[in-house]
Amino acid sequence: MIIVLQKEATAIQLDDIVNRIKRYGLEPHVIVGVARTVIGLVGDKNGLEPSYFEGLPGVEKAVPIMAPYKLTSRDAKVEDSIIQIGDVIIGGDQIVYLAGPCAIESREQITETAYAVRAAGASILRGGAFKPRTSPYSFQGLGEQGLEYLAEAGQAAGMPTISEVINPSDVELVSQYVDILQIGARNMQNFSLLRQVGHAHKPVMLKRGLSATIEEWLMAAEYIMSEGNYQVVLCERGIRTFETATRNTLDVGAIALARQLTHLPVIADPSHATGRSELVVPVGCAAIAAGAQGVMVEVHPNPDTALSDGAQSLTPSQFAEMIVACERIAGAVASDTADDWRKRNVG
Amino acid sequence: MIIVLQKEATAIQLDDIVNRIKRYGLEPHVIVGVARTVIGLVGDKNGLEPSYFEGLPGVEKAVPIMAPYKLTSRDAKVEDSIIQIGDVIIGGDQIVYLAGPCAIESREQITETAYAVRAAGASILRGGAFKPRTSPYSFQGLGEQGLEYLAEAGQAAGMPTISEVINPSDVELVSQYVDILQIGARNMQNFSLLRQVGHAHKPVMLKRGLSATIEEWLMAAEYIMSEGNYQVVLCERGIRTFETATRNTLDVGAIALARQLTHLPVIADPSHATGRSELVVPVGCAAIAAGAQGVMVEVHPNPDTALSDGAQSLTPSQFAEMIVACERIAGAVASDTADDWRKRNVG
Amino acid sequence: MIIVLQKEATAIQLDDIVNRIKRYGLEPHVIVGVARTVIGLVGDKNGLEPSYFEGLPGVEKAVPIMAPYKLTSRDAKVEDSIIQIGDVIIGGDQIVYLAGPCAIESREQITETAYAVRAAGASILRGGAFKPRTSPYSFQGLGEQGLEYLAEAGQAAGMPTISEVINPSDVELVSQYVDILQIGARNMQNFSLLRQVGHAHKPVMLKRGLSATIEEWLMAAEYIMSEGNYQVVLCERGIRTFETATRNTLDVGAIALARQLTHLPVIADPSHATGRSELVVPVGCAAIAAGAQGVMVEVHPNPDTALSDGAQSLTPSQFAEMIVACERIAGAVASDTADDWRKRNVG
Amino acid sequence: MIIVLQKEATAIQLDDIVNRIKRYGLEPHVIVGVARTVIGLVGDKNGLEPSYFEGLPGVEKAVPIMAPYKLTSRDAKVEDSIIQIGDVIIGGDQIVYLAGPCAIESREQITETAYAVRAAGASILRGGAFKPRTSPYSFQGLGEQGLEYLAEAGQAAGMPTISEVINPSDVELVSQYVDILQIGARNMQNFSLLRQVGHAHKPVMLKRGLSATIEEWLMAAEYIMSEGNYQVVLCERGIRTFETATRNTLDVGAIALARQLTHLPVIADPSHATGRSELVVPVGCAAIAAGAQGVMVEVHPNPDTALSDGAQSLTPSQFAEMIVACERIAGAVASDTADDWRKRNVG
Repeated sequence: MIIVLQKEATAIQLDDIVNRIKRYGLEPHVIVGVARTVIGLVGDKNGLEPSYFEGLPGVEKAVPIMAPYKLTSRDAKVEDSIIQIGDVIIGGDQIVYLAGPCAIESREQITETAYAVRAAGASILRGGAFKPRTSPYSFQGLGEQGLEYLAEAGQAAGMPTISEVINPSDVELVSQYVDILQIGARNMQNFSLLRQVGHAHKPVMLKRGLSATIEEWLMAAEYIMSEGNYQVVLCERGIRTFETATRNTLDVGAIALARQLTHLPVIADPSHATGRSELVVPVGCAAIAAGAQGVMVEVHPNPDTALSDGAQSLTPSQFAEMIVACERIAGAVASDTADDWRKRNVG
Repeated sequence: MIIVLQKEATAIQLDDIVNRIKRYGLEPHVIVGVARTVIGLVGDKNGLEPSYFEGLPGVEKAVPIMAPYKLTSRDAKVEDSIIQIGDVIIGGDQIVYLAGPCAIESREQITETAYAVRAAGASILRGGAFKPRTSPYSFQGLGEQGLEYLAEAGQAAGMPTISEVINPSDVELVSQYVDILQIGARNMQNFSLLRQVGHAHKPVMLKRGLSATIEEWLMAAEYIMSEGNYQVVLCERGIRTFETATRNTLDVGAIALARQLTHLPVIADPSHATGRSELVVPVGCAAIAAGAQGVMVEVHPNPDTALSDGAQSLTPSQFAEMIVACERIAGAVASDTADDWRKRNVG
Repeated sequence: MIIVLQKEATAIQLDDIVNRIKRYGLEPHVIVGVARTVIGLVGDKNGLEPSYFEGLPGVEKAVPIMAPYKLTSRDAKVEDSIIQIGDVIIGGDQIVYLAGPCAIESREQITETAYAVRAAGASILRGGAFKPRTSPYSFQGLGEQGLEYLAEAGQAAGMPTISEVINPSDVELVSQYVDILQIGARNMQNFSLLRQVGHAHKPVMLKRGLSATIEEWLMAAEYIMSEGNYQVVLCERGIRTFETATRNTLDVGAIALARQLTHLPVIADPSHATGRSELVVPVGCAAIAAGAQGVMVEVHPNPDTALSDGAQSLTPSQFAEMIVACERIAGAVASDTADDWRKRNVG
Repeated sequence: MIIVLQKEATAIQLDDIVNRIKRYGLEPHVIVGVARTVIGLVGDKNGLEPSYFEGLPGVEKAVPIMAPYKLTSRDAKVEDSIIQIGDVIIGGDQIVYLAGPCAIESREQITETAYAVRAAGASILRGGAFKPRTSPYSFQGLGEQGLEYLAEAGQAAGMPTISEVINPSDVELVSQYVDILQIGARNMQNFSLLRQVGHAHKPVMLKRGLSATIEEWLMAAEYIMSEGNYQVVLCERGIRTFETATRNTLDVGAIALARQLTHLPVIADPSHATGRSELVVPVGCAAIAAGAQGVMVEVHPNPDTALSDGAQSLTPSQFAEMIVACERIAGAVASDTADDWRKRNVG
């Protein structure tokens, strides 16, 4: 950490800061500049935050030098993490397709969708049973009943399943039905929930929050890992910006950068990122070109009767076309040898 | 709601949409324009969302006309809501000052602060026991122990208390100790938590999310109210923008607009909005000038030893000066007669 | 346009609005709803803006139905526009690579770069002579001298050239030296400059503003086209968001959507979008996968001596590798037949 | 400046960086940390930018310590700058009110408005003659004819005038008619225009750009001052955020912070910040409470016939009420002694 003193900081204030630094077992390096004095801290700052120093008299600002995440960092683990669910591998050589309806509406709907997306090439079945909805008057999902339908449909079609959990007290329940626990964007910093899924024995897919920085996203993953669950998949689903023509803005730079900073698999959700079915294919392809290792897509057998998010759902046949397009991009990316890619992108 | 058809929409698609609208008991009004056909919907759309129509073939977009919140709206209740906790009134003629440390660190710290902020003019004591922290390695609060200290300190100094609850399963516990339940910005759309505090018999202070629109904020209040708890206080605490010189950007327009749209009390948190103690006073004054009915401020007896957010904490004496400045502004605002203000600002 | 009346709007106010609408030669359609009355306007609204109606007593809001751009719209011209500069075609089947240094520093530097990027596969040479710099104390470019060097280097290497113009009075001068006039992001709404390049007889590359919506971007293109210059290329270069880990956020959804909304060619600038050389390749590939028809890249023979933006410049050999990667993606995109792509993405 | 090396940086890379630093006449201080090596630079970095170092092999990032602006800084001039136009003082003890229509539409309109706003208490007359409009088909202003009307109206009512200049080549023309040159938000980084008004002998009011940081805003002022024109007034007019309920978001924290960072006067424009006439009064009051030294307000004798921005214009009588409300706030702020305020807010 670098501490920048105020122009008017006194020698007594400098002394006080230096003594505090030493008291924490750190080594202070004072550099007297032309206009400002700065202090470099050497040692393990575990727990000490810039805001602590910014509260001290004479301090203008404190600038962290190191990223605050540890377990999620490539510094901790150089090789890509791979998450295996039955035959399905997330983070390996193949792009993983997660597909299904926004909300599970009935046994028929989810089963029909499961067979259809399986036939198109999806390997994981998604479907919401507990829905976080902006309005209390909107359809909130079928709850446990929905999870039962999802589990049945997944089994019937031979696919692992993923569904969102929104309440720490539901983690155990949801874990009984699904193969991957999803943390939604609105809950990315629901730390109680993160800790709880950190104790679960299921992989967790962590969506980036609407206005979360990449660092905050990795820190949220750190919460889960620090509780002992290392099976975390990151999902970029678009951030909130001033642009209103699309529902959100897919941040391909974040996908590329996350692939460099962390060993965890990174996937993308072009459905929520765009909110418009006609943009899902090009934006999904872009995510793969940027380094995404999977895409999660809303597919509904009849988008025009969907109880939620019909505007962004693909039909099964549109989804089948999407996979063809995505696989072409994936092939183009993969024809880089892994070594070349690493050399160029991870360093 | 207004449905705009695509340029190429066919007569059959138009018919299909019209029939669906009728099936939902609504009345369609078709307007054939020069370049586009639009359909106006008349009737109670309860539950029907724009995205449903946007998923239909031939539809370009669906534009809602009415705000989706009901109980929180001034349409539902014209007069300002008033929330009374013992002798303290939020939403009345007096500005309410909520003050205390970001985190409760010890019995001594919270008690010392309680007496100090009481003496300065605060009427509600704040202090965090369950802290939502970006890093799992940061101090997470004292938990129930902290709540005990807070309750003791509040009782000793004769002040009601407020503390954050971050897990639905803790609502009952926190309710036993504090007078007002706080929902933090990161949990504004933690719908399980909102429902849970909707069942509590304590007032709830709902902070606006970092990137929540005013409409989403009111919808979050609607969640709480729709469960039966009408004692909701809104708190604007700054939104996340591109600007990095301040921690967040206090949205005074949102304060002024919320005062018009809803009958619920609106307060502001200039500490989190700015992140810099030297900006807390002018920004707090601005909030009051915009219509805020209270301010929540971080006060720490020794900001330079605070375990979190020292940079934005005031000392008790700075806080005393702040109240003097705020009261001057409040007096200036109040010298408008209530009627004048309403005429000009609420309509 | 749809006009929504206030709940309390009177019959007299309604009458007044209806009469104004008729006076403008438009046809009003009044729909009396349960909670609000709305008026649909039919006819050519040329020049009439929502804000005009929003200033009238009794009006809550006015919602435009149609996009405000005309010449730039696919409604005006269905086929992709193609811009030809000598042998180089922008907007055709091939991805166009524009490369060169951020700033022209010397005859040697730009000439060396020209040969290098030409050898790597670039077809257009870029180089800044008039530099818009945040600080008045930063290097501002070589001015006309730089343009001479650029023209020489382009001629020597057999490449058309592009350079930025920042002052309306320089348009003629810059036009004498370069083949394409560049409008920078900070000048996207410099309407005097837009009009001036609208009179030039050279193609114009229009960068999207840092915080410009897609609609504003297309309206800026409309300014140029409405003056008679139809040779406009759009360039997405990243928007400003809350994320600070990358310089900007490349908006791939905007690329895909712009390809649908307008017939003008759309290219991307991954150098400014990311600000980090190690992200330029994956983000450039993502842009192509989303539908970009070209990429503009900063290439410097010695990035570590660049007078500006060294951090985001590629070396010539990194650029050569980038083209290989981009061409693979382009091949994957192109193996869609044009018809398939249009069917799926343009409709 | 602090340079942070990559984890893998070699001794040779470190040597190379150290030598470059020395070659620029600066003194390098190397601190070898546990996980990273950092180098502190001591000396006058004039012209040397972080991006130069970030382009060097082995460098992770370069962090500037000092603000890049000089002439605008309170470090350069401690006392508030005061700008005098005839009898009117901007930056002194009194709040300055600038009022008038968005666009000058006719001699009658601007003259009628001038008398009305003068009577209400305004001291400077505003009116747009060259209008930067998003659409080329919108009313673009009356040009020089409008300036004539404005000058006449100002003279008749005894008020200095302000109007926007959007083209460097018009600076001389506009200077002949008006007392203050306005630079609009969209031109805040139109550096050609900034340099040109830097040569004018009239005060300049510089609006903050829609997505400009406070630092970029001060750097834009620096452009004007570095050309020799020290009479610069800053105007906060709302920034662009994700919120759509208001036109922009007035950044009161920026007002308070700018008052600390710079000696230049700071005013606010609540009309453009909110876009809604019913929010102009509370938001204008908030700006004054935060430290604004003036407010610029759109006033139109008949907002419901305004050719632009009717929705945000006040009537003269609403404006008169606004001044009463603002003066009450100003009185409350001023009852702080200047010394107290400085002590608390400027340090």
